[in-house]
Amino acid sequence: MELEDSIINKFGFFERGPKNAINIDPLQTGGKLTEDARRALLEWGDGYSVCDFCGGTLDHIKKPPIEEFIHNAMPSFLQTDAVRITHGARESKFMVMHSMAQEGDHIVLDKLAHYSSYVAAQRARLNVKSVPHSGSPEYKTDAEGYATAIEEVIRDTGKAPALAQITYPDGNYGNLADVKRISEICHVYDVPLMLNGAYSVGRMPIHAKRMGVDFVVGSGHKSMASSGPIGVLGVRDEYADIVFRKSPTHKVKEVELLGCTARGATLMTMIASFPHVVKRTRKWENEVADARWFSSKLKDMGMHQMGDNPHDHDLMFFEAPVLYDISQKAKKGRYYLYRELKERNIHGIKSGLTKYFKLSTYQVGRDSLSYVADSFEEIIEKYQKMV
Amino acid sequence: MELEDSIINKFGFFERGPKNAINIDPLQTGGKLTEDARRALLEWGDGYSVCDFCGGTLDHIKKPPIEEFIHNAMPSFLQTDAVRITHGARESKFMVMHSMAQEGDHIVLDKLAHYSSYVAAQRARLNVKSVPHSGSPEYKTDAEGYATAIEEVIRDTGKAPALAQITYPDGNYGNLADVKRISEICHVYDVPLMLNGAYSVGRMPIHAKRMGVDFVVGSGHKSMASSGPIGVLGVRDEYADIVFRKSPTHKVKEVELLGCTARGATLMTMIASFPHVVKRTRKWENEVADARWFSSKLKDMGMHQMGDNPHDHDLMFFEAPVLYDISQKAKKGRYYLYRELKERNIHGIKSGLTKYFKLSTYQVGRDSLSYVADSFEEIIEKYQKMV
Repeated sequence: MELEDSIINKFGFFERGPKNAINIDPLQTGGKLTEDARRALLEWGDGYSVCDFCGGTLDHIKKPPIEEFIHNAMPSFLQTDAVRITHGARESKFMVMHSMAQEGDHIVLDKLAHYSSYVAAQRARLNVKSVPHSGSPEYKTDAEGYATAIEEVIRDTGKAPALAQITYPDGNYGNLADVKRISEICHVYDVPLMLNGAYSVGRMPIHAKRMGVDFVVGSGHKSMASSGPIGVLGVRDEYADIVFRKSPTHKVKEVELLGCTARGATLMTMIASFPHVVKRTRKWENEVADARWFSSKLKDMGMHQMGDNPHDHDLMFFEAPVLYDISQKAKKGRYYLYRELKERNIHGIKSGLTKYFKLSTYQVGRDSLSYVADSFEEIIEKYQKMV
Repeated sequence: MELEDSIINKFGFFERGPKNAINIDPLQTGGKLTEDARRALLEWGDGYSVCDFCGGTLDHIKKPPIEEFIHNAMPSFLQTDAVRITHGARESKFMVMHSMAQEGDHIVLDKLAHYSSYVAAQRARLNVKSVPHSGSPEYKTDAEGYATAIEEVIRDTGKAPALAQITYPDGNYGNLADVKRISEICHVYDVPLMLNGAYSVGRMPIHAKRMGVDFVVGSGHKSMASSGPIGVLGVRDEYADIVFRKSPTHKVKEVELLGCTARGATLMTMIASFPHVVKRTRKWENEVADARWFSSKLKDMGMHQMGDNPHDHDLMFFEAPVLYDISQKAKKGRYYLYRELKERNIHGIKSGLTKYFKLSTYQVGRDSLSYVADSFEEIIEKYQKMV
C-alpha cells in the first residue's frame, strides 16, 4: 500500500491528557522530570546530541561530565564498582543474564519478578527456577527459598545456577525481601546475585555492597526522574570484565552494550536530575511514613493493603471489596471508579479495576494524598447512597 | 567511597555548546528535531509517559495513534510487512541476528558495515564472513562478492549463512550498493537479506520490497528527526513470527523486544516528526544535487571526494592534501582546522582531522553550504599566505 497524505497527516504533535493530573500509577511517580531535566531535554533533544563530544566511548566523555557521572558519582551512589548506562532495567538484566550464563543454563528468579525478567531469561535461552512467595495476603519471598531452588538446580543438572535475582521491591506488592540473607545464601553456593532495583534505585538508599549483591539494576524512567528509555547497571569488579567485555575487532567497544547505549537527551536528563534524586533518597523515611498514612486512610474505608504490612515502600497493592461491591450495582459497572477519579484529576488506577489495584504514593506529598483519600471517601459515599 | 555533596553538585543542567552551529557531522544532520518534535519532547518527557495509555502492548496503543503508526503508516513508508520500534539501528540488527541465527552460525556482512554490525554479531556469538570492497578511491562493494562469500561459508560449514546484511549507504563513504542485485544473489541461496538503512530511512525513499530485502533497519536519532535512542525494524511477513515471537509465559510480550522498547518521549518525537520526514524523503533529489554541488566546490580547492563519484548521498568522505599540507606547518598543527571552523560557527569535522574527514550536507541548505565552502576557501587562503 502506498503511503497516502491522509495517513501521513494523522501524525504530528499530540497532547498528553493526564500530564497535569495527580498521577498515582507506580510506573509514573518516580519518573517525573525535574525542572533541570526539562531544560536538558530541550537543550539535548536533537538526535543523539551527546555524540558531538564523543571520542569513541560514551562513558569517557569529559565535557559534559559523563565520565565522572558514570565512573565516579554513580558507583558511589549505588555503592558498587563499575557502572554503565543502559536502555532500561530490563536491558540491564538481559545484559547480565546473557553474559553470565550460557544457553541452556539455569538461573533463579523470585516468583514475584517482573515479567521482563522472565522474558529476558527466555531471550537469553535460559531455564528459570523460581522461588515461591507465601501467597495472600503477604506475598512474602522467603530467603531460604533461594537455598531450596539452588539445590534443586544442582540436583537436576549437576551444577549451580549461573545467576540468581531478587526483585527489590517487587512491582506488585512493593515488598522488600531480606536481600542480605539471600545474598549470603547465594554466595554459599557461589551463585552471583542481581538486585532488580527498578522501583528502588533513585527512590530509596541502595548500597549494593552492604546488601551483598553482585549486580544492581536501576530504571531511569521509573525511579530516577529521567526521560526514558534509560537505566543503569552496577557490577562488582569481579564480574565487570565479563559483562563489559570488549569487542575483539573494535577494541574500545563493549559487546554487551552493542558499543553504546543512551547517547542523547535521556542521559542528559538523568544527569540533570541526579542532585535531586540523590537528595530525595535521603528523605526516604518520609515517603514510607506517607505510604503508611495513606494505607491507614484506605483501611478505614474498608480497603486492605496486601504485601508487607506495616509497609516499607510507596508501591502498594489493595484489595477493595467496598469498591468492588459498588461496581456490581453501579451504572457502567466497573468503569465508575476510573471515571470518578478522572473527574477529580486523579490518574493511575487502571480503567476497569475496582477489586484489586496498585498505586504509589511516591513524591505525591501529604496534601495531594489527602485529596486522593478524600476523593475515595466521597466516591464511596456517593455510590453507597445511590445503590 | 561515600557520595559527597561536592560531587553531587557537579551535576545538573549543562549547555550544549554547538546547538546553534551549522553542524555537518553525518551523525547529526538527519536527527535534528522538528518544531513539533520539540513540543512533543516537553509534553511527553516524564519517565515513560506513554505507559499511561498502554493495555499491555505498546504497539497496540490507540490514542495517541501508536498502533496506526507502527502497523499502518510505517509499513507503508518502508514498504515492508511488519514493523516494530526499537532502541536504535544496532538494537534492530541484533534482534534480527539473534533470532534468525543460532550461536556459532555464520552471517555475511559487507566490509563497509558499521562497527555495531560486527559487535552485534559478536554479541549474538556468530561468525562473520565479510564481503570486500574495491579499496581506494571508490570503496565499492561488488554485489557478486555476496555469492562468493555465501559459497565460501557453504564450502567451509556445509550450510548457507543464516543471514546477510548490506549497509545502505555505508557510514564512511556514503556509497549506495546495488541492493537489488545483492538480494537476487542472496535469495538464490535462500539467505535472507537485511538492509541497514541507518543513513537512508528517513532521508531518502526506501522501498524494502522493491529492493528485495527481508529486513529493513532505520535509526530515529540518525535520520528520522527523533530524539534518541530510537530505531525501527521492518520485517517481511515470512520472518515476523521468528523475530517477533511471543513469550511462552507472558503471551502478549515479544521476547526479542524484552516485552517493550521506546515508551516515552523518543517515540512521540518520531511520531511528531513523521509528516516532515516522509515529505523530505520525496525531495531527495535536491539533497543529492546539494551534495554534488558541495563536492565540486571542494574539488576546486583541491579536495577529493572518495566513494561513488558522482555521488548519490549526502554523506561524503574527502581526502584533503591541501589541508594536510597546512597542518604540517601551522601553529598548533592539525588542530587549526577545527578551531578555524569553530570560530565560524561550523561544527562536525572531528578535532585534529585534516587529511581525511567525512561530512554530511543533509538539510543544511544551499546558503549554509555556500558559507561552509567559502569558509574552507578563506581558511586555505589565510594559511597559505602565512606558512
